[in-house]
Amino acid sequence: MSNRKVCVVVTARPSYSRIKTALQAIKKHPNLELQLVIAGSALLGRYGNAVDYIEQDGFEIAEKVFMVLEGENKTAMAKTTGLGVMELATVFYKLQPDMVVTIADRFETIATSIAAAYQNIPLVHIQGGEVTGNIDEKVRHANTKLADIHLVASESAKARVLKLGEQEKMVYNTGCPSIDIARDVKENPALTFDPSQKYGGVGATIAKDAEYLVVMQHPVTTEYGQAKKDVMTTLEVVHELGIPTYWFWPNVDAGSDGTSNGIRSFRESVNPKNIRFFKNMEPNDFLRLLVNSKCLIGNSSVGIRECAYLGVPVVNIGTRQHGRDRGDNVIDVDYTKDAIRDAIQQQITAPSKTSSPIYGDGEAGEKIADILATCPLSYHKTITY
Amino acid sequence: MSNRKVCVVVTARPSYSRIKTALQAIKKHPNLELQLVIAGSALLGRYGNAVDYIEQDGFEIAEKVFMVLEGENKTAMAKTTGLGVMELATVFYKLQPDMVVTIADRFETIATSIAAAYQNIPLVHIQGGEVTGNIDEKVRHANTKLADIHLVASESAKARVLKLGEQEKMVYNTGCPSIDIARDVKENPALTFDPSQKYGGVGATIAKDAEYLVVMQHPVTTEYGQAKKDVMTTLEVVHELGIPTYWFWPNVDAGSDGTSNGIRSFRESVNPKNIRFFKNMEPNDFLRLLVNSKCLIGNSSVGIRECAYLGVPVVNIGTRQHGRDRGDNVIDVDYTKDAIRDAIQQQITAPSKTSSPIYGDGEAGEKIADILATCPLSYHKTITY
Amino acid sequence: MSNRKVCVVVTARPSYSRIKTALQAIKKHPNLELQLVIAGSALLGRYGNAVDYIEQDGFEIAEKVFMVLEGENKTAMAKTTGLGVMELATVFYKLQPDMVVTIADRFETIATSIAAAYQNIPLVHIQGGEVTGNIDEKVRHANTKLADIHLVASESAKARVLKLGEQEKMVYNTGCPSIDIARDVKENPALTFDPSQKYGGVGATIAKDAEYLVVMQHPVTTEYGQAKKDVMTTLEVVHELGIPTYWFWPNVDAGSDGTSNGIRSFRESVNPKNIRFFKNMEPNDFLRLLVNSKCLIGNSSVGIRECAYLGVPVVNIGTRQHGRDRGDNVIDVDYTKDAIRDAIQQQITAPSKTSSPIYGDGEAGEKIADILATCPLSYHKTITY
Amino acid sequence: MSNRKVCVVVTARPSYSRIKTALQAIKKHPNLELQLVIAGSALLGRYGNAVDYIEQDGFEIAEKVFMVLEGENKTAMAKTTGLGVMELATVFYKLQPDMVVTIADRFETIATSIAAAYQNIPLVHIQGGEVTGNIDEKVRHANTKLADIHLVASESAKARVLKLGEQEKMVYNTGCPSIDIARDVKENPALTFDPSQKYGGVGATIAKDAEYLVVMQHPVTTEYGQAKKDVMTTLEVVHELGIPTYWFWPNVDAGSDGTSNGIRSFRESVNPKNIRFFKNMEPNDFLRLLVNSKCLIGNSSVGIRECAYLGVPVVNIGTRQHGRDRGDNVIDVDYTKDAIRDAIQQQITAPSKTSSPIYGDGEAGEKIADILATCPLSYHKTITY
Repeated sequence: MSNRKVCVVVTARPSYSRIKTALQAIKKHPNLELQLVIAGSALLGRYGNAVDYIEQDGFEIAEKVFMVLEGENKTAMAKTTGLGVMELATVFYKLQPDMVVTIADRFETIATSIAAAYQNIPLVHIQGGEVTGNIDEKVRHANTKLADIHLVASESAKARVLKLGEQEKMVYNTGCPSIDIARDVKENPALTFDPSQKYGGVGATIAKDAEYLVVMQHPVTTEYGQAKKDVMTTLEVVHELGIPTYWFWPNVDAGSDGTSNGIRSFRESVNPKNIRFFKNMEPNDFLRLLVNSKCLIGNSSVGIRECAYLGVPVVNIGTRQHGRDRGDNVIDVDYTKDAIRDAIQQQITAPSKTSSPIYGDGEAGEKIADILATCPLSYHKTITY
Repeated sequence: MSNRKVCVVVTARPSYSRIKTALQAIKKHPNLELQLVIAGSALLGRYGNAVDYIEQDGFEIAEKVFMVLEGENKTAMAKTTGLGVMELATVFYKLQPDMVVTIADRFETIATSIAAAYQNIPLVHIQGGEVTGNIDEKVRHANTKLADIHLVASESAKARVLKLGEQEKMVYNTGCPSIDIARDVKENPALTFDPSQKYGGVGATIAKDAEYLVVMQHPVTTEYGQAKKDVMTTLEVVHELGIPTYWFWPNVDAGSDGTSNGIRSFRESVNPKNIRFFKNMEPNDFLRLLVNSKCLIGNSSVGIRECAYLGVPVVNIGTRQHGRDRGDNVIDVDYTKDAIRDAIQQQITAPSKTSSPIYGDGEAGEKIADILATCPLSYHKTITY
Repeated sequence: MSNRKVCVVVTARPSYSRIKTALQAIKKHPNLELQLVIAGSALLGRYGNAVDYIEQDGFEIAEKVFMVLEGENKTAMAKTTGLGVMELATVFYKLQPDMVVTIADRFETIATSIAAAYQNIPLVHIQGGEVTGNIDEKVRHANTKLADIHLVASESAKARVLKLGEQEKMVYNTGCPSIDIARDVKENPALTFDPSQKYGGVGATIAKDAEYLVVMQHPVTTEYGQAKKDVMTTLEVVHELGIPTYWFWPNVDAGSDGTSNGIRSFRESVNPKNIRFFKNMEPNDFLRLLVNSKCLIGNSSVGIRECAYLGVPVVNIGTRQHGRDRGDNVIDVDYTKDAIRDAIQQQITAPSKTSSPIYGDGEAGEKIADILATCPLSYHKTITY
Repeated sequence: MSNRKVCVVVTARPSYSRIKTALQAIKKHPNLELQLVIAGSALLGRYGNAVDYIEQDGFEIAEKVFMVLEGENKTAMAKTTGLGVMELATVFYKLQPDMVVTIADRFETIATSIAAAYQNIPLVHIQGGEVTGNIDEKVRHANTKLADIHLVASESAKARVLKLGEQEKMVYNTGCPSIDIARDVKENPALTFDPSQKYGGVGATIAKDAEYLVVMQHPVTTEYGQAKKDVMTTLEVVHELGIPTYWFWPNVDAGSDGTSNGIRSFRESVNPKNIRFFKNMEPNDFLRLLVNSKCLIGNSSVGIRECAYLGVPVVNIGTRQHGRDRGDNVIDVDYTKDAIRDAIQQQITAPSKTSSPIYGDGEAGEKIADILATCPLSYHKTITY
């Protein structure tokens, strides 16, 4: 039997963290051949050059797909997706994979799904069945309905994919590959590098042995325009607290320029002496930074997912992670200064540090590769009812 | 309160039949303003110039969207869809509708869904919740997950949309607008026109008072390559039976050229003396032709839907209508000459003529307009669970 | 020194005839590596499946680019070109050729030029400097201004390219590769095959030893709408003359459906007993058919170019070849029945058969390969003045 | 006679300055109707939001076209152009203008030319016939060959357009509309606003009555990668001189991120105390700033064109303006610190201040409108020879 060609499409920096250990396991699996496609913002400098980290990790890139249309609005987001369908259709036509993998629920991931499904290539969807409150919610479940094989990250996600009419034998709970990285970090938690020295960044100088916060706040797609106001609220709180803080720029989205502008404008006017700003970090360095921090603040899924496993206290702001399973480590607040400040102080003084396995036990990558090597392949399905 | 602007996107001839009475009801509704977008194969001469019929019916066209990429393969089908997303995104950006309506499950209908959903325009999906066995199946349910408001055509369809996690208050069973036209025809069934005189066509001359068959056979998307072979099988049976027959060319799809080539090649080599070929007809003329026929043969949804209401005997070939609710008027067969011939003879000699209201009572168009005028509008939703 | 990678983009059946012997010479040249890209209508069945002939000729195809947007209008023509730029940009990015070759003046050839020039790849333009009266005229000279190296087919073409401000050392008169095929045919003119047997076709049966005409009439792009009327005029004349005739369908263009419809409609209504219709032929078979014919009728460049070398009498209709150098073998007429009929009768009874070397001596392919292997490569230039 | 509909496509901030007075004259002309299309980087915040200034100037925008594909490479530049062709084809199909105007030679201007020419809309090209050394050179002359009517800015430009084979009656020397704005400024040269107060900007505070320099340095498209190094060279010189300086960010191009990164990185590491950075200014404010400055440094065409008329001393760096007619006010230098420093010091101490009318007399806008209202309209042409 010849090896199965598995084409994985990575469209953004955070998606790479979610899939990295699975890519490694696919690459070294004796019955699989990895075809890695890097697309969208993962190729762009101003979203953190994920492509460079991917190559440094030793992956060979089969195709690069430039598809991000500029424009600070949702029309550009839709057109980026349309362009992605056109480009990825050509890519799959040439690579002729035995299956295509699409990841989670970013808006452009549906381009991968359409380009594969319409060409009768079995489609694997990773991390379906979760719940949020925005356009991601629509995209995620549409991906599920376009996909043939489902690799989910929790039991409640599996239940939801089944409810959506998928066949039980095609739905597997593997846990999330991001937890695999977290497991390594948890076993070796020492912060062995100086963030500013290794990653540069701009802004304040943070003492090597200081206790610190970490902030990662993304714009919320369907609340475009609020992005700038929202990030300024958090900036003000963190500035006033005066605790040394590592702050990460958001990834691309309609509105990312609102968030970015908010940060830039705050830096120009206030020049906060306790915050240093970073574009990005290698995933395991980032987790190591988190595990040694006092608290993560913002709305990143890392707070819900990896921090559950790591037991890092989290202040989760707003609706972006709404509906996702979460551990005891999270305090949810809305976009008001008082609420954010109170929650941070609570997490610092009486931290919630319970670790939880809801998103996996740290072996998701290998489970995924094994399933892809052996699962039945089909592109025909009918809703169960 | 200002009128709601309802943007309806029609991408193919058969979709127009499915929505026509709703368009009329929207147009004359005091609280609605119709923005009609004609796209895809509905604009093209070799798929029957649906756009001309639409204009003759008195509709004003707000935008025309050329998006069909040539190429006898599925890659072109995917790229057509991607192009559709890009073009329709611009159209919606300009028209600024209060809601967008996407129809059923053709592959390119997801372009309408994405372009609307990604721009936070409430999306209405017509005729979700049905079941078939091909790419349509994936597209239909993905449309449901991208849509906010669901107007379905039967009770079993409603049950399926609810199972897919949609909120009950957003799902309405209106019946299918195509039945509205069927109702008019059933009330006045006389064949008042000569098909060859009114629509031309090519091939045999059919006597005005002859008993006749009607054939409409489309390629089945995910069985590409079979298209030519499949249509030749039916052609041979119908030719051998020698009964006068009105035959309709297929609509556009990957594989439509296979079907078209099959027909052309059969005409050149055999020149059947009992078959006349037509590109298309106005929907009510077509239904009038059906209601006076001995039997409809092929795989068109008209056989399942309108013919249920009209009580016209149908020989349904192959998997294209698999899983759809059907009345007693249908005999299902596979693509073999014997099976097709036997079923035709049975329907001619002992026809099944029971009428059934499973797809509506003939007032769908007005129900749809009333719902669009009053339903809650939202582009936020969360899967029910 | 490593071999130069030469990427040639063929977008249509007639372009292939114009470049075939150059492709063969590039392929076998010790210092060149051929990267053959087949795009546009050259991939499509209804324009003659040029891609099949190309593969039968032993060429390996590096990339296929589907880019033809359907639509019987000029907007589709423009959008096809835009799509071509997008797709070919990706192709060149991946193939990383040392130079790109664009051929002549079809509307979509400017897509090749832009995709190469904008990526700083030296661009070679074949058959610039000629003169016609339509959109081709604009496209051809724009290609010249985007190109760095010019391989022209006649001395008057060379003079025009120099006048356009190109440097003398970058302009080479190689003659036209189509003449290379004509040379072989002229040396072995016997019609060794039966056209109907080898290529099928539809319509009349033509006796193997009959004297015959050949017709090839294309729509004229900027006179869209006239296409159907024009072709019907010629059909009527040829039908009335009653001489056995081989007729070739046009290639793709805005308006090709007008021409095709004209032919189809004439066949249905008149069913001419002296005309057989073909989609296409291998280039050398076609030339062999021509060299044995009484006369070529229509507006194909073959009449101007190959027939000059072969000394075949030509009735050239309309403006399509306006301004091109021509030999004594051509009589020019406009689109009127009388003029066409008189010219045909004159060419049959007192044929002009002078052979002329204005478009080359039959060694263009090898000259082109040698130049590409040795010419200076640059993508910088300044208009001479 | 009904008014002529003139569709002008503005794709970038600097193009707007070049056309503004012509737009005003078209708008108020009794026989013309302006259809203004804003596209490309003119719509984007990070290139200066030209669209906002255009609306503030009282123009109504007929269509906005988002077409800029992200990606720090030339492939993205090509694909942006292809996307532009597709989008603008639709725009012209809908607006049905009597003529389309494309401006100068930015890479994406050829999209306007193709979309118009291929739809048989008479194409007007503004500012053809000039000479530079990069991709602009190819684009400009290709635009000329696609265009029907030529409005050039100098006598030497007119001579070159004629040499390119255009008909004399279709070529008009109107001068450059940018000089019209310069004329107003020259008549009222007082600096009536405080740049930092009106436009913000970041960096040093510059005293209101200080003598100052102005810098505007763009990346040079075909020398991509050099961009960062080049801008750092100029930054170092200007920083070392210590003279108060207003510095302007570059417009979008392949490489603009190199230039932008160079500036950002210099600011972070050196934090120069004499330089203030601006994104953009209204054209007449910018000219007023120039006319009061000691010297303009960089490679902007403003130095060649408006500064010739204004008599402002210019240090022009590198090849970007190579081949353009220039006045006595310009000293040309290459990208070395010594050469740049020496030239600045010479211009400060012994400035060249001769004014020259080579690019017009300040009435170009009205001349252009008058010509567009009366010139013969055609989309057919043949090269003169």
